[in-house]
Amino acid sequence: MTLIDGRAISQAILDTVSADVAALRDAGTTPTLAIVVPTDDEATAWYVRSIVRTATKVGVEARQIDRHGITADELVAELASLSSDPGVHGIICQTPLPKGVTLDQVGQHIAPAKDVDGANPESLGRLAAGLPAFAPATAQAVVEILQRERTPLSGVDLVVVGRSNVVGKPAALLLLAENATVTVCHSRTRDLAAHTRRADVLVAAVGRAHMLGADHVKPGAVVIDVGTNPTEDGGLVGDVDTAAVEPVAGSITPVPGGVGPVTTALLLRNVVTAARG
Amino acid sequence: MTLIDGRAISQAILDTVSADVAALRDAGTTPTLAIVVPTDDEATAWYVRSIVRTATKVGVEARQIDRHGITADELVAELASLSSDPGVHGIICQTPLPKGVTLDQVGQHIAPAKDVDGANPESLGRLAAGLPAFAPATAQAVVEILQRERTPLSGVDLVVVGRSNVVGKPAALLLLAENATVTVCHSRTRDLAAHTRRADVLVAAVGRAHMLGADHVKPGAVVIDVGTNPTEDGGLVGDVDTAAVEPVAGSITPVPGGVGPVTTALLLRNVVTAARG
Repeated sequence: MTLIDGRAISQAILDTVSADVAALRDAGTTPTLAIVVPTDDEATAWYVRSIVRTATKVGVEARQIDRHGITADELVAELASLSSDPGVHGIICQTPLPKGVTLDQVGQHIAPAKDVDGANPESLGRLAAGLPAFAPATAQAVVEILQRERTPLSGVDLVVVGRSNVVGKPAALLLLAENATVTVCHSRTRDLAAHTRRADVLVAAVGRAHMLGADHVKPGAVVIDVGTNPTEDGGLVGDVDTAAVEPVAGSITPVPGGVGPVTTALLLRNVVTAARG
Repeated sequence: MTLIDGRAISQAILDTVSADVAALRDAGTTPTLAIVVPTDDEATAWYVRSIVRTATKVGVEARQIDRHGITADELVAELASLSSDPGVHGIICQTPLPKGVTLDQVGQHIAPAKDVDGANPESLGRLAAGLPAFAPATAQAVVEILQRERTPLSGVDLVVVGRSNVVGKPAALLLLAENATVTVCHSRTRDLAAHTRRADVLVAAVGRAHMLGADHVKPGAVVIDVGTNPTEDGGLVGDVDTAAVEPVAGSITPVPGGVGPVTTALLLRNVVTAARG
């Protein structure tokens, strides 16, 4: 079995992003990403630091806007203000959100042209309709990895486990556009293993540590593990039990070092695309 | 095998619509549907006549706007003008469209609040995100029929054949929200029959006469046939070879008299919903 090297893929994308940023800066534009952080959360803080670090490396300006304890109305106003700020090219709003607010509600206030993590339902709709739009970077990462690994997608049996608006659904729509025969499984699916076992490509996006084992995988399958589940000792594990699946799968993305770094690279690539206008 | 009576389902919906329209008219609002017809096409003209006839029966004002030969720019202006006309509650734009224009492009200019046939990608996105939105009436009809027939959907294997923006994709999204395990098959799918034969519920939305036969259907399956393919003698046939499938399927929607009349009824129900604001 091959472990897919997400860090190497990420670096390859970032090399291109760096060159593109340099060209934009030479032309007088500094690609700028606004990261709104509406609540105090350790995992979020860790992720934001990692985005800021990577952004800085490639020359993208990451403007972290800590607004812990912000109300829903203030958050909407903040996003609207950033949407009309010509110095900001990309906007993401971190979860968790203030109580009583959903990402979809918030996402509606991010201008689609700056919606670099595909949080606006309009972006999802444009994606579904095959129109130009930013997809959630995690869903994009799934497709990008498969394409860079030269995994055939046209006509293959592809199963996505998970139907969230940020990963499962957009990934399914993107992979359908790549001509895969796509099945979306979820918590209500009967006999999950019967579905996943026929998958040439299996995308796990559930958010439950090691829920997919050897019995769930077709021999030789390509497995993309989107899960990032914290462990008690401060580590991260995926939705797939990699050790158990190893003798069965053809290749698999590790956690960490798989989908995560590719996601960050694509987020920054999206900021460059947005800055180009 | 049971033939599902689309006309009876349609009538049941229209009875409620009639009562709702009467109440709205008593309150001073006449629910009004604008039907923009941008090209001269016989099949379209037939369909528009049928909408107008049904609308009139239930008290919805159907305003047919024949603009054969309209340019793309004029069409956009027309839709924008109707979108801001307070006397118009629902807007649909018939296909075929003028050359060089796609329904998605046109749909963007129909205000989501009046987009009673779900042509705006924003409507599709809101649908995908689980937010309130109008789905394309045909996709809605698929779900409505299954619900009225009390077909269990949660956890069942459901296969949609076809991935158009107007039927396949939105139907898949709606049925996923009903907790079905949804597979979308299409022209690139390998071994279509292997997929459709495991479907408890099979939705055919391809647009190819009789392309699904007995070999494609699981014994006892519920089959929803969205196809309306013209025959040489001026009739209509579905995507499913109903006679062949009859000994196998548990129930099936006929063509004509299945999905079609339910679609029209739901379109008018959407106009009422839009008129209520």
